[in-house]
Amino acid sequence: MALELCIENIKGIFDGLPDETASQKAELLCQQFASSSDLSDTVVGLNTLYLTSCGALVFVMHAGFAMLCAGAIRSKNTMNILLQTVMDAAVSAIAFYILGYGFAYGIGDNPNGFIGDALFGMARWAPKNQAFTPVAGAGWQNWFFQWAFAATATTIPAGAVAERLNFNAYLIYSFFISAFVYPVVVHWVWSYEGWLGFARNAAYSHLFRSGMIDFAGSGVVHMTGGLAGLAGCIMVGPRMGRFDSNGNPVEMPGHSATLVVLGTVLLWFGWYGFNPGSQLLINTAVSASVVGRAAVTTTLSGASGCLSCLLTAFFRHKAWDLVAGCNGALVGFVTITAGANVVEPWAALLAGLTGGWVFDFVCWLFLKLRIDDPLSAAPMHAFCGAWGVFFVGLLAKRQYVCDAYGRDCQNTYYIPNGLLYGGDGRLLASQVIGIICIFAWVFGLMSILFAALKAVKLLRISAEEEQAGLDVSKHGGSAYNYDHGLGKPEKVQALGL
Amino acid sequence: MALELCIENIKGIFDGLPDETASQKAELLCQQFASSSDLSDTVVGLNTLYLTSCGALVFVMHAGFAMLCAGAIRSKNTMNILLQTVMDAAVSAIAFYILGYGFAYGIGDNPNGFIGDALFGMARWAPKNQAFTPVAGAGWQNWFFQWAFAATATTIPAGAVAERLNFNAYLIYSFFISAFVYPVVVHWVWSYEGWLGFARNAAYSHLFRSGMIDFAGSGVVHMTGGLAGLAGCIMVGPRMGRFDSNGNPVEMPGHSATLVVLGTVLLWFGWYGFNPGSQLLINTAVSASVVGRAAVTTTLSGASGCLSCLLTAFFRHKAWDLVAGCNGALVGFVTITAGANVVEPWAALLAGLTGGWVFDFVCWLFLKLRIDDPLSAAPMHAFCGAWGVFFVGLLAKRQYVCDAYGRDCQNTYYIPNGLLYGGDGRLLASQVIGIICIFAWVFGLMSILFAALKAVKLLRISAEEEQAGLDVSKHGGSAYNYDHGLGKPEKVQALGL
Amino acid sequence: MALELCIENIKGIFDGLPDETASQKAELLCQQFASSSDLSDTVVGLNTLYLTSCGALVFVMHAGFAMLCAGAIRSKNTMNILLQTVMDAAVSAIAFYILGYGFAYGIGDNPNGFIGDALFGMARWAPKNQAFTPVAGAGWQNWFFQWAFAATATTIPAGAVAERLNFNAYLIYSFFISAFVYPVVVHWVWSYEGWLGFARNAAYSHLFRSGMIDFAGSGVVHMTGGLAGLAGCIMVGPRMGRFDSNGNPVEMPGHSATLVVLGTVLLWFGWYGFNPGSQLLINTAVSASVVGRAAVTTTLSGASGCLSCLLTAFFRHKAWDLVAGCNGALVGFVTITAGANVVEPWAALLAGLTGGWVFDFVCWLFLKLRIDDPLSAAPMHAFCGAWGVFFVGLLAKRQYVCDAYGRDCQNTYYIPNGLLYGGDGRLLASQVIGIICIFAWVFGLMSILFAALKAVKLLRISAEEEQAGLDVSKHGGSAYNYDHGLGKPEKVQALGL
Repeated sequence: MALELCIENIKGIFDGLPDETASQKAELLCQQFASSSDLSDTVVGLNTLYLTSCGALVFVMHAGFAMLCAGAIRSKNTMNILLQTVMDAAVSAIAFYILGYGFAYGIGDNPNGFIGDALFGMARWAPKNQAFTPVAGAGWQNWFFQWAFAATATTIPAGAVAERLNFNAYLIYSFFISAFVYPVVVHWVWSYEGWLGFARNAAYSHLFRSGMIDFAGSGVVHMTGGLAGLAGCIMVGPRMGRFDSNGNPVEMPGHSATLVVLGTVLLWFGWYGFNPGSQLLINTAVSASVVGRAAVTTTLSGASGCLSCLLTAFFRHKAWDLVAGCNGALVGFVTITAGANVVEPWAALLAGLTGGWVFDFVCWLFLKLRIDDPLSAAPMHAFCGAWGVFFVGLLAKRQYVCDAYGRDCQNTYYIPNGLLYGGDGRLLASQVIGIICIFAWVFGLMSILFAALKAVKLLRISAEEEQAGLDVSKHGGSAYNYDHGLGKPEKVQALGL
Repeated sequence: MALELCIENIKGIFDGLPDETASQKAELLCQQFASSSDLSDTVVGLNTLYLTSCGALVFVMHAGFAMLCAGAIRSKNTMNILLQTVMDAAVSAIAFYILGYGFAYGIGDNPNGFIGDALFGMARWAPKNQAFTPVAGAGWQNWFFQWAFAATATTIPAGAVAERLNFNAYLIYSFFISAFVYPVVVHWVWSYEGWLGFARNAAYSHLFRSGMIDFAGSGVVHMTGGLAGLAGCIMVGPRMGRFDSNGNPVEMPGHSATLVVLGTVLLWFGWYGFNPGSQLLINTAVSASVVGRAAVTTTLSGASGCLSCLLTAFFRHKAWDLVAGCNGALVGFVTITAGANVVEPWAALLAGLTGGWVFDFVCWLFLKLRIDDPLSAAPMHAFCGAWGVFFVGLLAKRQYVCDAYGRDCQNTYYIPNGLLYGGDGRLLASQVIGIICIFAWVFGLMSILFAALKAVKLLRISAEEEQAGLDVSKHGGSAYNYDHGLGKPEKVQALGL
Repeated sequence: MALELCIENIKGIFDGLPDETASQKAELLCQQFASSSDLSDTVVGLNTLYLTSCGALVFVMHAGFAMLCAGAIRSKNTMNILLQTVMDAAVSAIAFYILGYGFAYGIGDNPNGFIGDALFGMARWAPKNQAFTPVAGAGWQNWFFQWAFAATATTIPAGAVAERLNFNAYLIYSFFISAFVYPVVVHWVWSYEGWLGFARNAAYSHLFRSGMIDFAGSGVVHMTGGLAGLAGCIMVGPRMGRFDSNGNPVEMPGHSATLVVLGTVLLWFGWYGFNPGSQLLINTAVSASVVGRAAVTTTLSGASGCLSCLLTAFFRHKAWDLVAGCNGALVGFVTITAGANVVEPWAALLAGLTGGWVFDFVCWLFLKLRIDDPLSAAPMHAFCGAWGVFFVGLLAKRQYVCDAYGRDCQNTYYIPNGLLYGGDGRLLASQVIGIICIFAWVFGLMSILFAALKAVKLLRISAEEEQAGLDVSKHGGSAYNYDHGLGKPEKVQALGL
């Protein structure tokens, strides 16, 4: 069938010959060479596999967040924070399906740089919405991949408001951020018509002809999540007993270091979908090299972030602090996420190292300001995310920018370059404007939301409930019910307990 | 070498020219165009990567099942259920290698719709057994992928019979289901010659010219596992103390909500191999869109299932029940598994929502009937699985059926359609017949097996062993041995404990 | 653009015709057939996706190692071993970036069979370093994949020296093995110029014209890690109280069987990247079949290893020992890793079965010799790894060797064959020499390192610290801090605790 069609298509080149001879010659060619439509098909399949695999990896970060958050707080609030993580995945899926994806990527009747206006409920797909997708219908995997990112942004703040936020407030917040706040930022930076982002298609670069480079979302995802957390933990106030009467912090260690490590390593694993997946296409040698580079820079930045925080903690406390090492690795990942595609490996090491310093400084500052962020979610995601965005303005490499965004470095049109490589500062200026605008949008909107919830007394649980723990007061029990009370039960039982 | 062969192959089209000129012209073409055999090779590679990646994801569901089951039962039986999960993976591999794969997919000397008759021990591969595989030898990855499904079906019942089944009985059951019971159902529905299933190849549709659509196995895998669990938990009876003297249920909370969540999220992760992987090939744009759609519908159904069960539980108990939310997500996945390839996203939301209702109702019914299923494995997998199969009969979309099964919707031959899209009911009738036959086969055979084990007193442990816990009585210790008895050890030590 | 270029390239075949007619005919061909450069691009993309996906799976084994190690030791040393695992990932990344990758794969000015001499800091890429990579720049994903292996080798010994090694000693060891000891072994066996390994390129087979076959590293990775652990646990001596005054072993059960199972299943999952990924390329039907076969043999060997150890333990202790089953599965994987690409499925079952016996025997021997290896890392990785390498010499199948290493079995040059298939023993001799040389290199160097650390009193913590636990003495706290002391807290509280 396909062979006959092929013969029919090309027989014309032998138009001087008898039909039978022409067909025979055409058949020789058709059997020898691959049809271009078969190759296009294979390319679609390859890109789909790439995007769905990476999307699944991004999703597994939810297992990471759940374990990390659970392990880092007290056991009496474990079920609460676990439920928030599971809920974030569910609520964000529905919110992103109905509204979020449309606000982020929809190009409808009134395309504009601020907000999308089509694709709500995945409806009204049109050719102009196929931006990232080489064929009609390939939007499915794109939705899936983008939702996994939305779910990540949604769940980051859970750690910042842990152990005292009202669960109903969390439900409202979760829908609001994944349906509206986050998608608008995505539209600015990642959609083709966004006013802020560096465009893959040169025709669309709006800001200083350069635009902000935020590959996998140090700004779009991590700043958004982290700033929402910051607004929340400021508005809800510190946990009872977190600061003593003199304002000095009182340690509230998490209940399981094992869970913290499990969460960290699962997040590390998932980041190999988050960053390498953000190239979105893998069917060219250049794209593939960007994917590979993203895996390398992600690894190196996480590694140096880990050692950076570990050593700082050692010099300050004279102990090898496991949680510091875990946080450091995550800080390294957050920092490199904006530029994983456009920096050299040694710059990735630098990103992690300096990200660790930013993190440590902001954590120290928070304690001075009596801001209680149990997971250090805001220092990590908001501030190291911002640092990562800024870092790109310093050390993005022109050749890698061309590779990553399908531009031709030999061409004469403007291609941005990191300041330290001799760039003219337009890229750095774009990055700074991006940081400021994301801050204003997210911190502003989320502060309003949390303030409104506070005004109607929906924001925080009562002191009694906080004392007893959210699990008993709101979730009908305790996360753990070991027989025998564990550990040397025979002795406890000997006492008749 | 390849170039010379190419030139030789096509030189004939220039047969009027001198040999050297003909070769030069042929070389131009050979260098410009890709050879069709290179593309076929690439396609095989792509499909292999797809199937092995998805198979690995399906396997990781074992980590999910292990954690979910462990967390949902009492700590004194933890090692027992963990060992069952690990064993299921091992036993099913050997059983599926020796017998199962042959019963499922083997096409030997006596091909028939009921049971396969070749490929035992992976021997006797023949061209007719290459059904799903484009080249000779590509059966390896197919075996791997199919085994991962067999292992899943095998491990589902562990939760239903937890905390009181004899381990030897479990060993026998595990071999029996993966070697015989499950493979026969696979043969009916998924093999080319099966009497029950909707065939990819139109020539083989046996039932009402339609056949049952069960994409990734709401019926084949989940009903099979769930019904085996149902037979087991009825035959072995409730755990001691599960119902009081008046027959009212007594709560037996699991020992770790953290493990329940970890298990749920890992299962969610693995489901992205289970459903999107079930397209089996990804090398065409249409296949790829089915893969993407399956990822989307899976996500949405899990999300709505989660919220469905969470809200029901909230209205009944006035608490946000973490375990209800986790079960709900899994219910959503089980329900959509049959039709993830052929329903619209909004229908997926509906699947999860209604699946949650089915689950809650059956759980309630079980308590009324004093059936004790510690993990609610039967309500989830057997009943929501059946509901998922039925749901396809209502809301399968004709165009998506064509996409998913390689048919041409423009053609005049019969293509089934969901009843609510105006279908003629043949598909729904096939689905109902499928449900009935899987029920009869699995529940019948497994009841006989468990009854036989009961008759020889191999089914249930003694009351003393149940009191002490399976770990101490059968597995040589306790799952947990914490130093200091944890939690404020200093105070306990002050008492001289 | 691409179309015009294509027309220009091939127009010459119509050189007798008017230019316009020639262009029209050329266009027909250019539209029908896929360009060879597009296909090459797709192939690079496919291989990149394959290698980065598999690399991520190999990395997730760190989550497995962390949970396995934590669960298998006492809770008072949990943070210590968790930090070692996280650190191993970080330190190995930096060490492998700066030095390790260069020693392993660099081909610089003085290529030799013993050690690499380029690519330090990923610098000095040259065409001759593109060995495994079809296009320039594709080295990124190769570095990533190879680092994941280095990290695995680095973290294996943690279990052997658990609960008493000085953390500073561990830091030094971790850098040393990933920067130097492991990469040299890689160079011997896996680099194109290595003196020991079986070469993919026939021109480079150095040893007996055969060379050692070690597909995914039973020798390169597992023996290296296991032997480093052996050197460490001999030099540091047994844990306090591990042997009583008569020299009889005292059980020191791990603190969480749940973590042991979670770790095992995550390792199992990751092994599907470790073995199938080691084919390195997947763009031909033959390569793809090797990838698929590796997934199958890995599964079967793990399954039979699991049952082998489980049954042995049952006959010895009359209990179904969960940890034995988990260790058995891992033993099966370690054993098959060398030959997963070249043995039949039934041979894989045999590998796991016999690997289990080797493991049990060596564990027994260690107790007789009063060697204390808390995780049995040396029996598992060093001895079963060696057994796996040897096994290949017995049961490698000639046809599969050709498939896996791109050779032509019809050719007349020498192709090795397993002894039991009638091989001439050169392969087996190569395997034995490989085992001996890896043993001498790794055990020798690591013994020197650990002896030096002992001499400067850096090797082992003090008796007081060991009594108190490493977590309290070195890491500033305890891994677990449950509220209420868990399990029946109300009773404990009734006592006024």
